[in-house]
Amino acid sequence: MSYTYGNNLKLQIFGQSHSEAVGATVEGLPAGFEIDFDALGAFLARRAPGQALSTPRREKDAPVFVSGVTDGATNGAPLTVLIYNENTRSKDYSELKIKPRPGHADYPAHVKFGGHNDIAGGGQFSARLTAPLCAAGGIVLQILKKKGIEVCAHILSVGDARDASFDPVSDQTELFDGLRSRSPCVIDPAAGDQMKSLIEAVRAEGDSVGGVVECKITGLPAGIGGAGFGGLDGAIGAAMFGIPAVKGVEFGAGFGAAALRGSAFKPTPSIGREQRTVNLETGRNDTLTVQGRHDPCVALRAVPVAEAAAAIAVYDMMLENGTEAI
Amino acid sequence: MSYTYGNNLKLQIFGQSHSEAVGATVEGLPAGFEIDFDALGAFLARRAPGQALSTPRREKDAPVFVSGVTDGATNGAPLTVLIYNENTRSKDYSELKIKPRPGHADYPAHVKFGGHNDIAGGGQFSARLTAPLCAAGGIVLQILKKKGIEVCAHILSVGDARDASFDPVSDQTELFDGLRSRSPCVIDPAAGDQMKSLIEAVRAEGDSVGGVVECKITGLPAGIGGAGFGGLDGAIGAAMFGIPAVKGVEFGAGFGAAALRGSAFKPTPSIGREQRTVNLETGRNDTLTVQGRHDPCVALRAVPVAEAAAAIAVYDMMLENGTEAI
Amino acid sequence: MSYTYGNNLKLQIFGQSHSEAVGATVEGLPAGFEIDFDALGAFLARRAPGQALSTPRREKDAPVFVSGVTDGATNGAPLTVLIYNENTRSKDYSELKIKPRPGHADYPAHVKFGGHNDIAGGGQFSARLTAPLCAAGGIVLQILKKKGIEVCAHILSVGDARDASFDPVSDQTELFDGLRSRSPCVIDPAAGDQMKSLIEAVRAEGDSVGGVVECKITGLPAGIGGAGFGGLDGAIGAAMFGIPAVKGVEFGAGFGAAALRGSAFKPTPSIGREQRTVNLETGRNDTLTVQGRHDPCVALRAVPVAEAAAAIAVYDMMLENGTEAI
Amino acid sequence: MSYTYGNNLKLQIFGQSHSEAVGATVEGLPAGFEIDFDALGAFLARRAPGQALSTPRREKDAPVFVSGVTDGATNGAPLTVLIYNENTRSKDYSELKIKPRPGHADYPAHVKFGGHNDIAGGGQFSARLTAPLCAAGGIVLQILKKKGIEVCAHILSVGDARDASFDPVSDQTELFDGLRSRSPCVIDPAAGDQMKSLIEAVRAEGDSVGGVVECKITGLPAGIGGAGFGGLDGAIGAAMFGIPAVKGVEFGAGFGAAALRGSAFKPTPSIGREQRTVNLETGRNDTLTVQGRHDPCVALRAVPVAEAAAAIAVYDMMLENGTEAI
Repeated sequence: MSYTYGNNLKLQIFGQSHSEAVGATVEGLPAGFEIDFDALGAFLARRAPGQALSTPRREKDAPVFVSGVTDGATNGAPLTVLIYNENTRSKDYSELKIKPRPGHADYPAHVKFGGHNDIAGGGQFSARLTAPLCAAGGIVLQILKKKGIEVCAHILSVGDARDASFDPVSDQTELFDGLRSRSPCVIDPAAGDQMKSLIEAVRAEGDSVGGVVECKITGLPAGIGGAGFGGLDGAIGAAMFGIPAVKGVEFGAGFGAAALRGSAFKPTPSIGREQRTVNLETGRNDTLTVQGRHDPCVALRAVPVAEAAAAIAVYDMMLENGTEAI
Repeated sequence: MSYTYGNNLKLQIFGQSHSEAVGATVEGLPAGFEIDFDALGAFLARRAPGQALSTPRREKDAPVFVSGVTDGATNGAPLTVLIYNENTRSKDYSELKIKPRPGHADYPAHVKFGGHNDIAGGGQFSARLTAPLCAAGGIVLQILKKKGIEVCAHILSVGDARDASFDPVSDQTELFDGLRSRSPCVIDPAAGDQMKSLIEAVRAEGDSVGGVVECKITGLPAGIGGAGFGGLDGAIGAAMFGIPAVKGVEFGAGFGAAALRGSAFKPTPSIGREQRTVNLETGRNDTLTVQGRHDPCVALRAVPVAEAAAAIAVYDMMLENGTEAI
Repeated sequence: MSYTYGNNLKLQIFGQSHSEAVGATVEGLPAGFEIDFDALGAFLARRAPGQALSTPRREKDAPVFVSGVTDGATNGAPLTVLIYNENTRSKDYSELKIKPRPGHADYPAHVKFGGHNDIAGGGQFSARLTAPLCAAGGIVLQILKKKGIEVCAHILSVGDARDASFDPVSDQTELFDGLRSRSPCVIDPAAGDQMKSLIEAVRAEGDSVGGVVECKITGLPAGIGGAGFGGLDGAIGAAMFGIPAVKGVEFGAGFGAAALRGSAFKPTPSIGREQRTVNLETGRNDTLTVQGRHDPCVALRAVPVAEAAAAIAVYDMMLENGTEAI
Repeated sequence: MSYTYGNNLKLQIFGQSHSEAVGATVEGLPAGFEIDFDALGAFLARRAPGQALSTPRREKDAPVFVSGVTDGATNGAPLTVLIYNENTRSKDYSELKIKPRPGHADYPAHVKFGGHNDIAGGGQFSARLTAPLCAAGGIVLQILKKKGIEVCAHILSVGDARDASFDPVSDQTELFDGLRSRSPCVIDPAAGDQMKSLIEAVRAEGDSVGGVVECKITGLPAGIGGAGFGGLDGAIGAAMFGIPAVKGVEFGAGFGAAALRGSAFKPTPSIGREQRTVNLETGRNDTLTVQGRHDPCVALRAVPVAEAAAAIAVYDMMLENGTEAI
């Protein structure tokens, strides 16, 4: 199944880019956890478009809690959160129904769903679905933090512009707090400037560029995760590959399991330049120029998404078999 | 996990009796299926309260599709449907926080969730959660019908008032159509009158009575379901036990697996008479008189719910391994 | 899938009646638990055939541990146990390939697997598969007992011969110990004598008879299991319906969830009398007289099987989300 | 859970390095598939140790089929295959109980299982568990080949010795056949010679070296896999991370999804050189020299393992929802 993750913390994501809303249902959260809604809003704002360097689509992304919350605290019932889709421009996408974008899910989705798939904005394959992932993951990050576990990511590279790496051993909690308010989210400001210049140049050409996000988890007790397909790296990998555009996941050779890096994000396939494709009506080669509003570098907004995915994977593993780590 | 069902058709139900909404997310529906919304509404109306003999709570229960539907047809994305909770009276339930109702989930939920559970209207344990079950199952019933598979249930007994049974062998499709518009839903009108009298008497005493629902599935190809824990009876049993108040599931000794009957529904535990309980604050014996609006016989409204649960179980099994039966 | 059960305690059963072995793999057992192999052997002996009133097939059923055990204790790795199939007489079953037994899985299995299914002894649908279920469940019963949880079953009825019922409220632990050594396993010896007479009469006619097993669980903490499809009754129901011949599961109206009863076992479909069937080669009506060794009443040996299934379901639920109950 | 993979093709691996056997149970294989046992043996031989450049432990690795096979063909029942553990030398490992090897699972397993884990040969964390993975995957590779789908891997690099890459677009089926008989398995023989020299040098120092395996899948129909966590890359990633020593998974930027590469295997942590560790008895720093027989480069034998994991992931996805691709 597509948007279901986890065995103990169960996450179900739903919605399409231009449906009434996107959302998530989470089972397995502890009852009585008081959600810090301001912190959650700030976390979601880091992912939201409308920032400099990203797509001009404005999304307020205010989470609406349908169930699972009583008086601001979790109540043990499945928690469902909606984020309404506003400011959508579905008319931009009609051409894609017959001219699939190269490097995007348009063509396999057309085959898989017999042409009945929602093409507007990428449908269920849109990066818009990372908004509810972050809403769910943002709550889990708060739960982990209370247990002394921090999950923090930054942009390691965009094209050939490269930030400093996390130190796999030393405590960097103070650095974490600063990182979360930087845009772009980098350790070394000079690297951030290089990235900005590169992205501006790429945007001017109607093109896009890929990037690498590095994520560090600290405070994790030993013994989380198991053997074989049940390892923590596999669990994190599966969560990361659930993020659109992720094409690689590596775990660092650090000391023990203290550090993991990183997720490789491919360039956005929706670009303004003319691209070669196949016309599904005529069966002939054709060209396509994608209208609409798109990120020149999706990695920029992917930092909180990677944190959310890592948090969900870690917490799901911690719940397994009720280890003392909980 | 609590409200998740199925391996191929994945169903996730969420909401509480008095939360903003109840809802369901379904993955695995075929893409391009045109939903008959009028038929779906009629099906949901059979479950809705506000009928004679049931609780006076009025629920319009109009399903709102958040995702998964484009131009009236499924689009292959997870389908999420909401049913907003209106006309709720949460003040009725405050006493139950310290005086759990006998025979209800109040006390185990208090222990499981450390007192953080939503008590209003039974919270996530409310029979209100069968509304989204019917919304999802109502669509699946339409899909099955297109494949020549009919699922039909009726009230076999209420207390000692007993309807005629389905014939396990002969075709009863014409009977099915008539049954769906009867209230109470019985084969023999005289049995229905007996049931009405019994329920009125029970209601007058502030009490409630249990009942048995019989369900028949026709047109099912051979070879659906597997051995051991993968059998069709186990799958249907698990779906049926997900309906609040079901205390037993039996499969008929008919010819082959053509007929199954029935699900035994216990009397509603929320009754108007004084009941004995334990006061969680004082730790002493206490008495409880439940206010609010309750069904004197939950089995009456359970007929479409049983059909919905059976349809979901059958279709999940049909999708398994892509048998030709699909 | 067919022989997989559980989300936290994961059980996988494999084998056919006449394959080299039947077996089970269990994940999720606590590490360091010292298995009482004598007690496990005694438990398996209660299920084994070769007793008075059951099939004369002799099975030593000695469990061979392939993995998961070090120096007599669980080691945290998946535990795999084999029970070799000996004393099989495959030649008895050749006729069934073209003349499926009524009331058995022969015909649906033929359709589902395109005729490639193993017909000997019922293949994977054989009650022989309850041997590894009991091997796994027997270990779980020992784990539960250490936590003060007892699971005990007896034969409530065979045909119209009926034993006394468990008391849903009072402590009956002393009765439990005695029950486990009785054959047939009944509370009231007079009822046992009635059952014996009935079964002998049925056997003499080449026929078989069904029965009901009642199971009681004591010492269970409140708060085990959840809402909807995650309830304890649904979990136990799914485990029980995984036992061949179970056609119904009911939960008693006792005080709270202290008592559950019972599982309805149908008469063995492999009987010595001539039965009517359809010949799959000719497509015409035909008759069948099943040779081989069969139980005149499968319920007799089903008592430990029901205990094993209940124990597995309960423990799987206890592991969920790491409740304090563990 | 640790050694369970797949939703439609369900794989359960069990065993420890020095238990009686390692094995696998597979549910979901098509019934009636005639296994080519010679081809399966040849495939397993590519993984087996005892070759030049790998550990001198001799394993015959002959698969013994316990269930699921009748007359050489699958019969629809769960298929269980055992590979007996012979030629084990458990005495080599006693020191590791108190001196965990750096970079290995010794310490987290000690914590997770309270010291009850089987330490001999790495227990359930041993690369020995890839033998049953290959037995199961080897059968799936044969099923895929019949459908025109080929899965082929080679060693892309060992340390800084680098082979030629697969061509992401052109047909290389002829190359595949040749590759499978080469040792080391490389496209460019000169790269193979470099790798051999490097590994010999590393072995002489009692050290080990990592490597990268590149895997190509051809003939895959469009539309396999879904959105979000249900994508084919995530499924393959999860299978790959189930292989011990895999620290990274990347998917190639080829045209469409035609090519994927590769899995990064870390150097074997069991090396002959003295390593620094912590003594779990004294709590002080200590040194460790691992005896026993170990691979200087685990990537060499990982080629068929990567093919097996990819095949299992692809086939599980193909079975999902019964797409026409089956």
